Amino acid sequence: MHEYMAPVDLTRCYRMLNHGPVVLVSARHGERANVMSASWTTPLDFDPPKIIVILDKQSFTRKLLEASGELVISIPQRKIAEQVLLAGSMTGHDGDKFERAGLEFFPATIVGAPLVKDCAGWLECRLIPEPANQEKYDMFIVEVVAAWSDPRVFSEGRWHFAGEEDRTIHYQSGGAFFMTGETFVCEGKES
Amino acid sequence: MHEYMAPVDLTRCYRMLNHGPVVLVSARHGERANVMSASWTTPLDFDPPKIIVILDKQSFTRKLLEASGELVISIPQRKIAEQVLLAGSMTGHDGDKFERAGLEFFPATIVGAPLVKDCAGWLECRLIPEPANQEKYDMFIVEVVAAWSDPRVFSEGRWHFAGEEDRTIHYQSGGAFFMTGETFVCEGKES
Repeated sequence: MHEYMAPVDLTRCYRMLNHGPVVLVSARHGERANVMSASWTTPLDFDPPKIIVILDKQSFTRKLLEASGELVISIPQRKIAEQVLLAGSMTGHDGDKFERAGLEFFPATIVGAPLVKDCAGWLECRLIPEPANQEKYDMFIVEVVAAWSDPRVFSEGRWHFAGEEDRTIHYQSGGAFFMTGETFVCEGKES
Repeated sequence: MHEYMAPVDLTRCYRMLNHGPVVLVSARHGERANVMSASWTTPLDFDPPKIIVILDKQSFTRKLLEASGELVISIPQRKIAEQVLLAGSMTGHDGDKFERAGLEFFPATIVGAPLVKDCAGWLECRLIPEPANQEKYDMFIVEVVAAWSDPRVFSEGRWHFAGEEDRTIHYQSGGAFFMTGETFVCEGKES
């Protein structure tokens, strides 16, 4: 296991994605593994936790997911944004994208897909087969079977970033990202 | 039309949601309109642009969508975060939520659902009926038929926030939000 890796309660793991960060999706089948960046993803259910991920038909990671029925969602931070951009702009059809994108990985606990190092959190997922959605919309529904966070930035169901490099990130276009910004709290009282 | 409201090219409108902000979903059927906040949404396709929105079975806005086949996604800013929280914590079954949440609205150009004032952008949408997804997963697929932005914060396919109050927001839990943070640009060159 990773040096900084603590279990996250499955019913709270949606909170790792609720703010809409860009993620890294990884999958493995046999000897081949791959990773790609993805912005088009959303939580779908709390318990059991489900997530939607949109994966283009050209994607090699998608092929590995379809063959293995498993994927991992890793939540990257500012410090590896350059690698996230690379993982979104090259294809794994030509060979292992991890090395070319400068990303390292380590084994998951339940699924065969690898976890990406230097991330803020990880969701190990199994595909819920929905062939019509997959074919028609490139939409994949997965169930989270294990969730982990770097407890320095996410614990007790909450994010608590310290430095800029720790922050999760959100993709715009053309190489531009937003950092996840400051937290503020509302009271939600009727005026 | 709103004082600050410029058309957005439909094939670029996904960029208004790519960074995962919380949105306001509004719908109308006959005399009844309603609005709710939603974090579980993602772009689904570029052209024609499609979006996925997850709407709980208890939601009155969902009932109006199912009856009318239309909704509007408004993208709120920091300045109305308190109202966004309220719109997410009360139900429209009891009566008009706009007034109680302190939100104002104005007419859309194509659909019957209303646009929420003081937002950064608006997507007028028509439901693509997918009864199985709606029933099984509370998942609604919509096609964007008109897109608008406040050009002071989004133009030429890019966000350009000035002050804090202008920024889009991302929901965490328990009344806590993130502001959309600073932009940074990566080069995406292999090292």
